[in-house]
Amino acid sequence: MNEEDYFKNLTDRERAIFEGGISMGSLFHQFVGTPVSTDTVTSLEIAIHDSILLQPAIIDVDVTIDKDLIIKNSGVMGYTSLTGDMLDVRLTTKINEKTIVTCISYDEKLQYPIMYIED
Amino acid sequence: MNEEDYFKNLTDRERAIFEGGISMGSLFHQFVGTPVSTDTVTSLEIAIHDSILLQPAIIDVDVTIDKDLIIKNSGVMGYTSLTGDMLDVRLTTKINEKTIVTCISYDEKLQYPIMYIED
Amino acid sequence: MNEEDYFKNLTDRERAIFEGGISMGSLFHQFVGTPVSTDTVTSLEIAIHDSILLQPAIIDVDVTIDKDLIIKNSGVMGYTSLTGDMLDVRLTTKINEKTIVTCISYDEKLQYPIMYIED
Amino acid sequence: MNEEDYFKNLTDRERAIFEGGISMGSLFHQFVGTPVSTDTVTSLEIAIHDSILLQPAIIDVDVTIDKDLIIKNSGVMGYTSLTGDMLDVRLTTKINEKTIVTCISYDEKLQYPIMYIED
Repeated sequence: MNEEDYFKNLTDRERAIFEGGISMGSLFHQFVGTPVSTDTVTSLEIAIHDSILLQPAIIDVDVTIDKDLIIKNSGVMGYTSLTGDMLDVRLTTKINEKTIVTCISYDEKLQYPIMYIED
Repeated sequence: MNEEDYFKNLTDRERAIFEGGISMGSLFHQFVGTPVSTDTVTSLEIAIHDSILLQPAIIDVDVTIDKDLIIKNSGVMGYTSLTGDMLDVRLTTKINEKTIVTCISYDEKLQYPIMYIED
Repeated sequence: MNEEDYFKNLTDRERAIFEGGISMGSLFHQFVGTPVSTDTVTSLEIAIHDSILLQPAIIDVDVTIDKDLIIKNSGVMGYTSLTGDMLDVRLTTKINEKTIVTCISYDEKLQYPIMYIED
Repeated sequence: MNEEDYFKNLTDRERAIFEGGISMGSLFHQFVGTPVSTDTVTSLEIAIHDSILLQPAIIDVDVTIDKDLIIKNSGVMGYTSLTGDMLDVRLTTKINEKTIVTCISYDEKLQYPIMYIED
């Protein structure tokens, strides 16, 4: 079966939403736990960007890791582990003419790094 | 903001598709790499089931890990690492009255563990 | 080369220490990020136990995940992600007659989940 | 307790071996599963290098990911997931005057990515 044949039951918008969800879940669970400091945050952001850009339908990845939270969570060891509340990410997926932007950001009230579709 | 307020721009079907994608990407990237043998595959399937069932909108998780592939990939050490081609998973998401089934299975022709929505 | 030939340059005690280190690092970075609640913590503990017990030289795995911290970190979504400060683990490795116990526990002063060898 | 107080029961050589084991297990289980192609392999190697260099006692990290295996494993999607058999890594740990080099390389006969201490 060709890749496209798997998605005949989805509209372009639905598939762009699906692929955005997949890649956001992938990014979170692949990279959470990685050792990170303010010195290494840039190379980690680049590796996340490059690897997620490989995934189906992804045309743009914008990753910012919260440096203040890295500093706050780093004790005497000088580094910490990447956590979900440090992630501010926008993934753009495109299927034909339909473009969707999937986001993650930490919601203090929910105590939860929520993933959603931008208007 | 309440959780529901994030999703006012999605239909129930779109959100069920989005949450299915998130949880399938999460499952793959959280558990790929886990040491596994035919003796431990059941406890790994249960842990995957239980953890993914916690995620938003998930009402059912059906995980089968390919035992033949575990045996084939295990050398003299008696175990191997979980890979994407071993995964056969169906996740059911429900938003109000809309139910969606998200699948992953390995496509030999694509050489790729493809994620898709079941008809 | 046989497995044993790789370790001719280590004493039994050194190899037991090495394998304890490997498996503790593996456990941490494989499972941190997993969705977990007080309802699912037991199946996660069992899967961690079973998978790490497969690794070379491991003869016992004792995993306790901090339930109070799960409750504290769970917001309105009812679950959280496994973090290093929740882990209290003892791994026993044995090479011939030498037995070593490798531990991880969170040190509040260091703000760090430290891995060490028990006396 | 200070960090050093945890390691009074280890010689410098033993601790260098322990920290080498921890970081090799960490590296493997953190990054296996990451989407990778020949275009992105360099940024992934850099992120692995930088993050593992943060860990205790690590003074050098030399990471090479097997490009031929990436090509071989990439189907029509143009990328694959990082697997243990692609990793060729040397980690140098130093405690006081003792230096240890920890390696991982894939052993075809064992069908296993073996971790060991270089002579």
